[in-house]
Amino acid sequence: MTLAEQILAGNIRAAARLMRDIDDGRPQAIDELKALYPHTGNAYIIGITGPPGAGKSTLVDQLTASFRSRGKKVGVVAIDPTSPFTGGAILGDRIRMNRHSCDEGVFIRSLATRGALGGLSRSTSDVALVMDALGMDIVIIETVGVGQDEVDIVREAHTTCVVMVPGLGDDIQAIKAGILEIGDIFVVNKADRDGADRTARELSVMLEMRNAVEGGWNPQVLKTEAQRGTGIGELTEEILAHRQFILASDHITTFMQERSRRHFMDVLRDTLFKKALSFMTEEGILEPMVAEMGDHRIDPYSAVDKIVSRLMPDRTPA
Amino acid sequence: MTLAEQILAGNIRAAARLMRDIDDGRPQAIDELKALYPHTGNAYIIGITGPPGAGKSTLVDQLTASFRSRGKKVGVVAIDPTSPFTGGAILGDRIRMNRHSCDEGVFIRSLATRGALGGLSRSTSDVALVMDALGMDIVIIETVGVGQDEVDIVREAHTTCVVMVPGLGDDIQAIKAGILEIGDIFVVNKADRDGADRTARELSVMLEMRNAVEGGWNPQVLKTEAQRGTGIGELTEEILAHRQFILASDHITTFMQERSRRHFMDVLRDTLFKKALSFMTEEGILEPMVAEMGDHRIDPYSAVDKIVSRLMPDRTPA
Repeated sequence: MTLAEQILAGNIRAAARLMRDIDDGRPQAIDELKALYPHTGNAYIIGITGPPGAGKSTLVDQLTASFRSRGKKVGVVAIDPTSPFTGGAILGDRIRMNRHSCDEGVFIRSLATRGALGGLSRSTSDVALVMDALGMDIVIIETVGVGQDEVDIVREAHTTCVVMVPGLGDDIQAIKAGILEIGDIFVVNKADRDGADRTARELSVMLEMRNAVEGGWNPQVLKTEAQRGTGIGELTEEILAHRQFILASDHITTFMQERSRRHFMDVLRDTLFKKALSFMTEEGILEPMVAEMGDHRIDPYSAVDKIVSRLMPDRTPA
Repeated sequence: MTLAEQILAGNIRAAARLMRDIDDGRPQAIDELKALYPHTGNAYIIGITGPPGAGKSTLVDQLTASFRSRGKKVGVVAIDPTSPFTGGAILGDRIRMNRHSCDEGVFIRSLATRGALGGLSRSTSDVALVMDALGMDIVIIETVGVGQDEVDIVREAHTTCVVMVPGLGDDIQAIKAGILEIGDIFVVNKADRDGADRTARELSVMLEMRNAVEGGWNPQVLKTEAQRGTGIGELTEEILAHRQFILASDHITTFMQERSRRHFMDVLRDTLFKKALSFMTEEGILEPMVAEMGDHRIDPYSAVDKIVSRLMPDRTPA
């Protein structure tokens, strides 16, 4: 049996192996992904984003338990930006998820950014695809809401929850127009802290000022204490309500096309670059060129012209 | 006169125009950059990074004033990740730099991430190159130290200052091994706050545990109050000391080569992708393909194979 066939039969170990192959950039992994693709599109994808320290990992842990108790299989893709400032803290939090480690209905995968040639959004799409093929009903993507990469990832989700926390201060949280646009549901976590009601109220006011679209979704602000499990039931209900809404609307076709478009663009960018790298390596032209550029004997733009004119002769003006 | 000639003659307006052309992705911009390249490599590049709320913008403002008082021309590239969580706050801070706005020896440029096709590090390299060609002695690159993009940018700098702040809490700052590696100088800003000494001491201890390289640079921890200008002179001296160190060592050749390599790779990735996009647009094949992918009639990997085999026929196995 191919890896793809084993994954479609629900073999978790095969899924883990394919994810490793994807990480390692093995060319066979692409063939397996191609074989899986027609069998995907069934998983419901939930994005959880917010600033560092908002308690996202704990919330994801609770949501996982909540969907499990409803008989759903849950995949979790946790993005650990191996940023010096956040990487470590997030990895630490991950330990809390251990209670699901013996549950066959839960599949957790951490993604690091460093070294991912195709970028984070490419890796996230591929991993979510494998979880979908494996039969996960829900795939939760958890990411720190800082940086363009992370915002791109959130667009992968059917439902995006933005997690805020009282008391982090405006200069850190910077509750600005941007987050209002990406969130379908807003969560004020650590709601036992001072200022929770104020943060929730301010968010509600800002959401009301947002231009309401006729027949559009009306995002709610919920309060949770993920540590104690308070408010998790309500959050689950709200996610399911949003799911009902988008499946019933015309949005879903556009959504699926836009998602395919981004995935395609990511794979395209990645593939072209890899082809160029292997071309330069085979021809032994990379290192001499780098040395020339270091001495300012050739500029990087002219060096690129040289490579591209050999790789894509038809696309180069004579 | 070409834009490049005007910039080499010190024309600030021409520099601003080229930067706009770069942003807009105009092909002529590349020719101007090619013409500028042989005249660059003179500017000293300083990276300032740290978590949101650490007071980086104010510190950059003070450093700018400090280098100006030493007769140096200063360029500032401020990265505003148009992240929902930090974008706004950083743009707000930028207003403080206004006191330099009438000074011809200061050139400030904000870069947004959103929409930058070639990514942040590509734009930063190009803008720093223009500032270098314009005759800026110092180019300060300011970036939020979260996310892979931002870490890549910091590698552009000759000297990297990591800015921390007391009281942000470990879960946000996550003082981990990673930041120790990228910093040449560590700054505890807002040093009047409680816990400043403790943060500085902890940093020092961690730096001592770092494997010292024989004859290597020994990073110091400095305390500043950027708002009042306290400690800025010492920080300037330390930056200049690090400059002396790296110019005197063999590192500089490797450093210049690695920088050229990254710049080249960024331009290459960007150029290949743009060529592919224009090919698909000209042939009218993008939208039908996206529709097919949305319906799962073709997978993104096979779609990419189709495009690449037409663009790079020589690089495709028969």
